[in-house]
Amino acid sequence: VAVYTHLSDGELTILIDAFDVGQVMSFKGIAEGVSNSNWMVATAKSDGMHDQYILTMYERRIEIEDLPFFLGLLDHLSEKGCPVPRTIHDRDGNAFRMVDGKAAALIEFLPGVSIDRPNAAQARAVGAALAGIHLAASDFAGSRANELNLAGWRDLADDCGDDGLASIDSALPQLVNEELAGFAREWPADLPFGVIHADLFPDNVLMLGDEVTGLIDFYFACGDFLAYDLAVTHAAWCFAAGDTFRPDVAAALIEGYESKRPLSQAERAALPLLARGACMRFMMTRAYDWLHTPADALVTRKDPLAFARRLSFYRTHGDNAFKNRAD
Amino acid sequence: VAVYTHLSDGELTILIDAFDVGQVMSFKGIAEGVSNSNWMVATAKSDGMHDQYILTMYERRIEIEDLPFFLGLLDHLSEKGCPVPRTIHDRDGNAFRMVDGKAAALIEFLPGVSIDRPNAAQARAVGAALAGIHLAASDFAGSRANELNLAGWRDLADDCGDDGLASIDSALPQLVNEELAGFAREWPADLPFGVIHADLFPDNVLMLGDEVTGLIDFYFACGDFLAYDLAVTHAAWCFAAGDTFRPDVAAALIEGYESKRPLSQAERAALPLLARGACMRFMMTRAYDWLHTPADALVTRKDPLAFARRLSFYRTHGDNAFKNRAD
Repeated sequence: VAVYTHLSDGELTILIDAFDVGQVMSFKGIAEGVSNSNWMVATAKSDGMHDQYILTMYERRIEIEDLPFFLGLLDHLSEKGCPVPRTIHDRDGNAFRMVDGKAAALIEFLPGVSIDRPNAAQARAVGAALAGIHLAASDFAGSRANELNLAGWRDLADDCGDDGLASIDSALPQLVNEELAGFAREWPADLPFGVIHADLFPDNVLMLGDEVTGLIDFYFACGDFLAYDLAVTHAAWCFAAGDTFRPDVAAALIEGYESKRPLSQAERAALPLLARGACMRFMMTRAYDWLHTPADALVTRKDPLAFARRLSFYRTHGDNAFKNRAD
Repeated sequence: VAVYTHLSDGELTILIDAFDVGQVMSFKGIAEGVSNSNWMVATAKSDGMHDQYILTMYERRIEIEDLPFFLGLLDHLSEKGCPVPRTIHDRDGNAFRMVDGKAAALIEFLPGVSIDRPNAAQARAVGAALAGIHLAASDFAGSRANELNLAGWRDLADDCGDDGLASIDSALPQLVNEELAGFAREWPADLPFGVIHADLFPDNVLMLGDEVTGLIDFYFACGDFLAYDLAVTHAAWCFAAGDTFRPDVAAALIEGYESKRPLSQAERAALPLLARGACMRFMMTRAYDWLHTPADALVTRKDPLAFARRLSFYRTHGDNAFKNRAD
């Protein structure tokens, strides 16, 4: 939650002049992005029309290397009518420009507000929007490996160590080791595969009323099982404060998804396990960050235990949680 | 540079509904405010018009107590045609509302971009805008003491201690003690007094081209010598990278100021000393923050020595720096 890069008004003017978007009318740093810096830019064109954009600057090499995938995916999905922001290309047709060793992209600003506690109608709309990007991405040429897969979770767990995990909660090492061993035996090998968002938390969905106006922040997008993306979304959306399960919201999410892309029997059967994997993914990255962020640093460390509780829920009640209402 | 408060979409909707500004269309945390949290809010009214606002939440008691002064001043200056954001009052006429023990104000969003390195025409416009608020505030009823006055600088210096100051730079204790002793003897007692901005750094001025579109962030506004405000602005605006003086910008700033409010002979004579005081004020608050912020905290500590260098410049060259071009 910080703007890392300083961009002077002179640098800004030169940068925005490279795009055909008119004159800068305002420019504000926004509190988003873990590793990149973001600004809201409003412009005025000669015809008097005003527009808003998000300007993002990327500093990390890994992110810059993957930008053609991330930005190309946005353009592909946007062209197909998905509610994702398109990339504004510069006058030479580039999706991003290099400024001072950093990559800068100008991205469409979409209306909408992030929902903290979705109702069933909103969860249904999110499910349908998720299926929509799965379908629309099926002919996208780009690909990117999911580094936060089973092997990635194992690496994070090793890096934390049992002692580190135990320092967060004494029950954590056993939970992590049991689950990772179980995944190694049982993780499916042959479900429908494609480009997934992989991080569709409420923060990354914009809504107006019950309508999805934007799916954003595709910086974890990668290739993986489509049903795993639904499991991630399920784990992220279907719990209330205290991590209590919200069955109505969960059922609506899956109904919404299936309204556009019906799940196969194998996908449906795999969902409880995939949801445990999704919990492991967020538990491990949060545990890693927890152990590597000084306690007095002025950033909010996200609680790894929220996903330990959700994982435990799926272990016990997973089959029920994903039962078809019609079953 | 952080958003401290979390505001759920539900809390946001209830809050914005208390104002007659239409439906929320978007909502983004912005990277501003040292002690308060800020969001950009875009709304749509039933007639299809879109508007933008800054929503600010104040958590500190001291700031909440002073809100009637700060927000009343904005309304007063705005009514008089000064380029400051007006406060949007709620349906009951309140300039701010309490939410969960915090005060929330909705403030007009003004176009414009902060200029890092002003040219002379821009400095002239800033000087004129500053004189404009001094004149317009002359019949404002509110008052607020300047706690960052001579006694406040002395308190900060005592709190830092000579050892603390020396840990920043070995020459700092002598500079601070000599200057504070000099101020105690020479600080003027009888210059024109009124409401001043007291913090008009480039960050707090919005411009489009050479026109001032907004003076913002009045949270240090207080009663003091009007010429001290000009001295603060001089110290904040008239130095290039490396703290080298920019005589053309400085002359334009004062010309601009005098185009609306000519300085008395006593004010002009006092400016070099007032500018040294202005440098002391920022040097001391920055030194205090420097010594009280952990070095590994993820906030940018502002360099106290920038204002030590500017102070040294005013000690040596102050008379020349404020010489009338016509002299």
